[in-house]
Amino acid sequence: MHEDVVRRGRLSGERSKDLKSFLSSMDADRTIVNEDILVDIAHLLMLHRQEIISHEHMRVILKSLLLLQKNGVPDSAFDEGFEDIHAGIEALLISSAGEESGGRLHMGRSRNDEVAACIRLRLRDSLLGQMNALLQLRKTLIDMAEKHCETIMPGFTHLQYAQPTTLAHYLLAYEEAFSRDFERLSEAYSRVNRSPLGAAAFASTGYRIDRDYPAKLLGFDGIVTNTMDAVASRDFALEVLGDLTILMATVSRLCEEIVLWSSPLAGFISIDEVFCSTSSIMPQKKNPDTAEIMRAKTGSVLGAFTSAVVITKGIPMSYNRDFQELNPHLWRAVKDSVISITLLSEMLRTIRFDTKKMKGEAGRGFSTATDLADFLVLEYGLPFRTAHSIVGRAVRKGTIDMKSLDEAAAELTKQTLTARGLTDEKVKKALSAEGSVGARDHPGGPAAPAVHVVIRHAGKKFEHDRKLVESRNHAARDAIRSMLDEARRLAE
Amino acid sequence: MHEDVVRRGRLSGERSKDLKSFLSSMDADRTIVNEDILVDIAHLLMLHRQEIISHEHMRVILKSLLLLQKNGVPDSAFDEGFEDIHAGIEALLISSAGEESGGRLHMGRSRNDEVAACIRLRLRDSLLGQMNALLQLRKTLIDMAEKHCETIMPGFTHLQYAQPTTLAHYLLAYEEAFSRDFERLSEAYSRVNRSPLGAAAFASTGYRIDRDYPAKLLGFDGIVTNTMDAVASRDFALEVLGDLTILMATVSRLCEEIVLWSSPLAGFISIDEVFCSTSSIMPQKKNPDTAEIMRAKTGSVLGAFTSAVVITKGIPMSYNRDFQELNPHLWRAVKDSVISITLLSEMLRTIRFDTKKMKGEAGRGFSTATDLADFLVLEYGLPFRTAHSIVGRAVRKGTIDMKSLDEAAAELTKQTLTARGLTDEKVKKALSAEGSVGARDHPGGPAAPAVHVVIRHAGKKFEHDRKLVESRNHAARDAIRSMLDEARRLAE
Amino acid sequence: MHEDVVRRGRLSGERSKDLKSFLSSMDADRTIVNEDILVDIAHLLMLHRQEIISHEHMRVILKSLLLLQKNGVPDSAFDEGFEDIHAGIEALLISSAGEESGGRLHMGRSRNDEVAACIRLRLRDSLLGQMNALLQLRKTLIDMAEKHCETIMPGFTHLQYAQPTTLAHYLLAYEEAFSRDFERLSEAYSRVNRSPLGAAAFASTGYRIDRDYPAKLLGFDGIVTNTMDAVASRDFALEVLGDLTILMATVSRLCEEIVLWSSPLAGFISIDEVFCSTSSIMPQKKNPDTAEIMRAKTGSVLGAFTSAVVITKGIPMSYNRDFQELNPHLWRAVKDSVISITLLSEMLRTIRFDTKKMKGEAGRGFSTATDLADFLVLEYGLPFRTAHSIVGRAVRKGTIDMKSLDEAAAELTKQTLTARGLTDEKVKKALSAEGSVGARDHPGGPAAPAVHVVIRHAGKKFEHDRKLVESRNHAARDAIRSMLDEARRLAE
Amino acid sequence: MHEDVVRRGRLSGERSKDLKSFLSSMDADRTIVNEDILVDIAHLLMLHRQEIISHEHMRVILKSLLLLQKNGVPDSAFDEGFEDIHAGIEALLISSAGEESGGRLHMGRSRNDEVAACIRLRLRDSLLGQMNALLQLRKTLIDMAEKHCETIMPGFTHLQYAQPTTLAHYLLAYEEAFSRDFERLSEAYSRVNRSPLGAAAFASTGYRIDRDYPAKLLGFDGIVTNTMDAVASRDFALEVLGDLTILMATVSRLCEEIVLWSSPLAGFISIDEVFCSTSSIMPQKKNPDTAEIMRAKTGSVLGAFTSAVVITKGIPMSYNRDFQELNPHLWRAVKDSVISITLLSEMLRTIRFDTKKMKGEAGRGFSTATDLADFLVLEYGLPFRTAHSIVGRAVRKGTIDMKSLDEAAAELTKQTLTARGLTDEKVKKALSAEGSVGARDHPGGPAAPAVHVVIRHAGKKFEHDRKLVESRNHAARDAIRSMLDEARRLAE
Repeated sequence: MHEDVVRRGRLSGERSKDLKSFLSSMDADRTIVNEDILVDIAHLLMLHRQEIISHEHMRVILKSLLLLQKNGVPDSAFDEGFEDIHAGIEALLISSAGEESGGRLHMGRSRNDEVAACIRLRLRDSLLGQMNALLQLRKTLIDMAEKHCETIMPGFTHLQYAQPTTLAHYLLAYEEAFSRDFERLSEAYSRVNRSPLGAAAFASTGYRIDRDYPAKLLGFDGIVTNTMDAVASRDFALEVLGDLTILMATVSRLCEEIVLWSSPLAGFISIDEVFCSTSSIMPQKKNPDTAEIMRAKTGSVLGAFTSAVVITKGIPMSYNRDFQELNPHLWRAVKDSVISITLLSEMLRTIRFDTKKMKGEAGRGFSTATDLADFLVLEYGLPFRTAHSIVGRAVRKGTIDMKSLDEAAAELTKQTLTARGLTDEKVKKALSAEGSVGARDHPGGPAAPAVHVVIRHAGKKFEHDRKLVESRNHAARDAIRSMLDEARRLAE
Repeated sequence: MHEDVVRRGRLSGERSKDLKSFLSSMDADRTIVNEDILVDIAHLLMLHRQEIISHEHMRVILKSLLLLQKNGVPDSAFDEGFEDIHAGIEALLISSAGEESGGRLHMGRSRNDEVAACIRLRLRDSLLGQMNALLQLRKTLIDMAEKHCETIMPGFTHLQYAQPTTLAHYLLAYEEAFSRDFERLSEAYSRVNRSPLGAAAFASTGYRIDRDYPAKLLGFDGIVTNTMDAVASRDFALEVLGDLTILMATVSRLCEEIVLWSSPLAGFISIDEVFCSTSSIMPQKKNPDTAEIMRAKTGSVLGAFTSAVVITKGIPMSYNRDFQELNPHLWRAVKDSVISITLLSEMLRTIRFDTKKMKGEAGRGFSTATDLADFLVLEYGLPFRTAHSIVGRAVRKGTIDMKSLDEAAAELTKQTLTARGLTDEKVKKALSAEGSVGARDHPGGPAAPAVHVVIRHAGKKFEHDRKLVESRNHAARDAIRSMLDEARRLAE
Repeated sequence: MHEDVVRRGRLSGERSKDLKSFLSSMDADRTIVNEDILVDIAHLLMLHRQEIISHEHMRVILKSLLLLQKNGVPDSAFDEGFEDIHAGIEALLISSAGEESGGRLHMGRSRNDEVAACIRLRLRDSLLGQMNALLQLRKTLIDMAEKHCETIMPGFTHLQYAQPTTLAHYLLAYEEAFSRDFERLSEAYSRVNRSPLGAAAFASTGYRIDRDYPAKLLGFDGIVTNTMDAVASRDFALEVLGDLTILMATVSRLCEEIVLWSSPLAGFISIDEVFCSTSSIMPQKKNPDTAEIMRAKTGSVLGAFTSAVVITKGIPMSYNRDFQELNPHLWRAVKDSVISITLLSEMLRTIRFDTKKMKGEAGRGFSTATDLADFLVLEYGLPFRTAHSIVGRAVRKGTIDMKSLDEAAAELTKQTLTARGLTDEKVKKALSAEGSVGARDHPGGPAAPAVHVVIRHAGKKFEHDRKLVESRNHAARDAIRSMLDEARRLAE
Repeated sequence: MHEDVVRRGRLSGERSKDLKSFLSSMDADRTIVNEDILVDIAHLLMLHRQEIISHEHMRVILKSLLLLQKNGVPDSAFDEGFEDIHAGIEALLISSAGEESGGRLHMGRSRNDEVAACIRLRLRDSLLGQMNALLQLRKTLIDMAEKHCETIMPGFTHLQYAQPTTLAHYLLAYEEAFSRDFERLSEAYSRVNRSPLGAAAFASTGYRIDRDYPAKLLGFDGIVTNTMDAVASRDFALEVLGDLTILMATVSRLCEEIVLWSSPLAGFISIDEVFCSTSSIMPQKKNPDTAEIMRAKTGSVLGAFTSAVVITKGIPMSYNRDFQELNPHLWRAVKDSVISITLLSEMLRTIRFDTKKMKGEAGRGFSTATDLADFLVLEYGLPFRTAHSIVGRAVRKGTIDMKSLDEAAAELTKQTLTARGLTDEKVKKALSAEGSVGARDHPGGPAAPAVHVVIRHAGKKFEHDRKLVESRNHAARDAIRSMLDEARRLAE
């Protein structure tokens, strides 16, 4: 391992392996090592442009950095003897470029603004990935809905059959929820993609730096103004974790239903076998493991948010080492979420629905009793609450027919429904599942025409959001590409 | 207690007091009872406009509702024998207006959309209150910063003296953080202020309702489209709770510092006595209790978020009674946050800073050693890392003077600094706290000119945000006022 | 409101209503007000016995205290102008007994040890109540198991039918889990029931107090030795909250199954109507609300634990006002848990099982395929993994019969099972649900004889635990009764 | 990669890399791979003893297992194509021993009981390691206390100087708290160290197994009786996580004080440099990073508990794949805690106290004002509350001297203290820090004699606990050693 140049001046003493491993952030730093090189380059170009570093020293360092950018950072820089990858890379530069040049990169900055910049860069990309995955999921749900605008299924409340609805209506409920998750992440993006560079330790620096230039080079949308805030705040990370927790809470609901609907208890769907496991002992088993693990990931992501909040709670200004412990939780949650959303889309696309069974169940359990009550209101002018009570009492008697309805009506209103003109035929018609769904043709309702409108609208919103992600993606990549071009030019 | 008209038809059996209390949401429903009356009125006006209810029945119900709106809902409606306030109010209406009229209000809706509408209405107002409180807090910080642009204080990292900064710089760090909290809540507002009405149980309804009209009457910015999503989603509540958690995590940091700075260990500030307590046994004590409790509230609000996520985790579509348990957590967190922010502003305004002590400490602990290292770089062309090591080693020797510097330089570079031309005087000048701060005149930095720029910018942003809250406030109140005017007209 | 005698000397200034409410713990203090009187009496008796207070002053205060103990503390003591109920009661005493006597009670103590003692006393009783409720729940499960030793039902893994089991086996799984919850709470009890009295602010006191005497008077099992630890630790509260969270996590699993089994998807059980609700719109609905809210309470209790940990995290020694914010979470969680467990027992006792349906389902879904694989192993000496693969492949072909088995065996082993002597009849016998369950006669297994053994054992453990709770209950009550007798004697 | 023999029969389809990685538990399984071999051996010996497997097949498998036990499991078994390490090892055995033998190991069990056994074995060892680390920490604190029985320091409440105390008193407060953490973990141990083996999938098995024998072989203290509970419960893991969270909450308090006391704000201690870092930019910095990260670990461990509870919440019986996601959180928390406690002991041992500064501060801030109030009570018979108010008001006047005391007394009691006989000298004596501490000679108090008693007691308790851990350690190791001896004998 190269000498730890940060530590050598001020501190002495040999650390135990346990202590090194405890203090080091190297595991999590693998996530941001590529970003670190980019941040180094941006900083260096700024130092040069501001004439803080000479052209010659700049070229020597830049060559080394471009090599690392091209070939990757060697394992030696990840030695846990370094406190972090930033120290590791600086040692590497000094070892390759000599201290006379390599020792000049860290002018006008600190690891505090450096690491914050790396985290933000990496998180920016993760968010774009997450937004892309969410777009795919929304597209999947829209496509599925399109095929099932007229597929009738039982709608549930309290896990009891409630009223018939359409499968499209159900799928679009999730689509709408996930589009709000997209909005939240998209708004978080604008707070994440800001540059803390130039903040140095927290008070900026005595060198004549330019804070805007490296921000522009790296494709940030601007700077975090206050330099203390720039290094001491992690609310941007908490926000992303909070948003992911909320997203995963919705994912876990969908997965709960996949588990339930693929159970023989419901038998509504079957999932492709690649997403399932069998048992080591029970040869018949086909278990919905992917959905189960996905459901469990909600717990993992919430735990990450909890950890991150607790870690920052009550920590005085400005930077404190506690922050280092936040990062692994962030990267773990980001990774869990994006893979969950990606696989969820894939799994959904393989689902086969037993539409016959779903429709059959849609009419069970007096699920259209509301429609009968409504019919009594509309046809005979009964108050809704009276009609509701009559039908409810008939159900309690065990069945809905003229006998039970008449009895119930007589008990509650002193008059039978037969006397009002109700017939078996009318009851039967009022109780039809198709009729029930068809009548619910309101904005956002389950009837086929209503569903078609929403699908069109969702498609447009999808297209709009797709373009937004694309343009952000391009902006970020273009900036990095331009910076590297400029760097290569200067390094010649 | 009036008869429970919702339950009477379908279910029988007498509940124990414990069971009633367990199932009832009455405690939390006190928070939304006023909103419930407004939602009832909006629904009723829509039923009338769509000719689903006759003018006469409408007038009878409307009169009762307007009376409740004016005089408040009597305690009898909060009997825990009712499952919730919605059942309590319906029973009240039927008791006062007769079932023939009162039994007609619940056409075309369900408690599921009704309660979601009430929660959203109430939360909308809470958010506006919270944003207002945040505005006051930002204004307080800006005003304080304005007075302390040149007040030098020690800046900390790791709770060690790091570099001198200005009090204004420190205060503006919080101001910038809180303005992001404002942004988040403001964005959440646009997802909260949507109407779920017309969703009924989840599948909308067979009546010819209009979903837009009640949304407009109540001042909502539009509807939640999918009707299943409208009753089954609580991500809007989770989002607010997440945002409040993040906000409180920052509050707890500021409070930690208030506790610390008012401790004799620091002695930087003193707080007005009304915010302090003494001890029942130690007569000399003046404790910063308000800041301590505020710091603790972070735990309470995070707990509320945790509870809310867990409650919704894995719950299948659509409405489940579990959701009821979420509400008390929401209201508790909202109340805790708004009062914390309000009192925090008030407390901050009373703080007296011991600026002499703060400035005195700003130069202690070699806090300008970075400036000396930078001076060596700029004056003698040393690589930064070399200069950093020399100064660090001098500190390890116990003091920074020509002797220790020369020794360190000789050890690390084989050459003394004296030989390069360094003198005691130059060292002293490089180490001056005022010089250090003055040189840090970058955007967002601590130097007075930089701070002035930020204060102007923050003031403009404050003004912009103040107007936004004001216009939302007006829009919401105007809508309600117009609806009540219309209702009074129709009730005549 | 009486004068705040604690505050008057040191601090001035008038507090706003908001601030009073923010700082006051009065709401939560209602939970411990009775305990506070008992703690006052114990402290006073000690002061008298140690001759720190004169007989006359003691009598005057004691009379007032006994009146409060008998008649309850009046509302005036709960004025939010007092910081807490301890200040409220002291003001009351001084107002009624005069400062010359009433001002002497607080010698040799502080609110810090006083409030810790109150919390521990109250929590002790809550724990006994919780343990009692758990005992009832275990008894309920044992009684139910006794009736269902031979009721065959489908056992699940991954919510798929896995293997047949007995209802008794299933119920006893929960009984065993809940008996571990009992153990944990019982062990926590021994850490809760310790006296912090005599610790005063944290450093004990200069008066010649006796720490053991009030501990004995109040029925504590001893003292918390270190006086700083005694006022500054809340791990006893965290432990109870942790234990309750774990308990509720198990409760939520049972409730999940109650919701699921009472759904038409399963149709295994029906719950008494008092535990259910209907819908305000869907007259047919009978929803398992009690189980849903109970399931949701897990989130509330976990949230309380989270809050409590965060509140104490990183708080330096010794007492800090943050602790006050912990108490409402503690009392809420304790109340939620005990009522949940109590109602759960009651609800379980009303469940009617559709044993015919359960048995019918037990044989579905190839749930005895393992038994067939085992039969192939035992009868024809096939390696288990080979047999497992053969049966698994037969299932994949859609059915288990000689044809599919032979095909699968030929593919995997180059030999049909017919060739080995397998017949349709043998297959059918191997697949019988009764045979499967009957063969599982191992300790803790589902076969009737195994279940009977466990029921006997569980009954004995129940009896043992019942006696433990009873004896602790008696010890606590006897101590308080003796102390009050002694107090009345001295007050004469 | 070897064929996945578990999957091959029932399921088809090729999985993507992402999906494999999502479903696989291989990362976390590295933690339990050694335990898995031991569990395999125990199961095999039982199968042989019960004559379920022939001597010959047993020997073939056993030889392979012993080789793996000796040489470690090769990387090929960790291929993510296997769902878990259990499938990986079985494939390895079949590949090396042939399916005819290797395919027979999995008779009479399932991965469900297998993995539960592995987790419990591993956790047992982790708990012993944790208890050992806690013992070292307690010993460290006792040793430090012994040296500082008479070191006077300021005691804090609300981070204000409260009363003088001794450093030993302070250190022993933590010792007592940590000894309760030890108790909790020790009690958890007895629930962890139970064998689930023989539960198979959850319903036990049709083979004539013996559940007690493998439990004894592996050194378990007995079996988890109910076989459904045995595979479906994870409360033992939740309990450990809860206990560790509580432990870390106390650790974070101590670390908070280490950070604070080593800050120039306090200047009470200095930590050895190996536990500190410097800054990449500020050459003077010596930051208490180890304590900061340790403090942050509380957040990580609480997050792990949260995740684990959420993952198990509402999951129906019996085994569900969600449980797999719990394990990484468990292992992470266990590792974080044990290393934190170990390093904490090491760091504490290097601390140098500035006892002169601590003593100097102990008398500041009117910290003995209580003693003066007590003196007024004892000497002049004033009611405590009156004396408290007089001294409090004197402090508010800015200083405690005869003038301010007389004024305050006159205002509150119409009589000066001079008139009662108080003199400057008496005041000075009453305010002495040594006197204050010396008078506090109660059980658990700060006076040297009291502290000595506690140190002796703590030493005895330490010795007792040390022996308990030792004997458990021996029992566990002896069992495994005996089993391996027996296995080697049978394999010959």
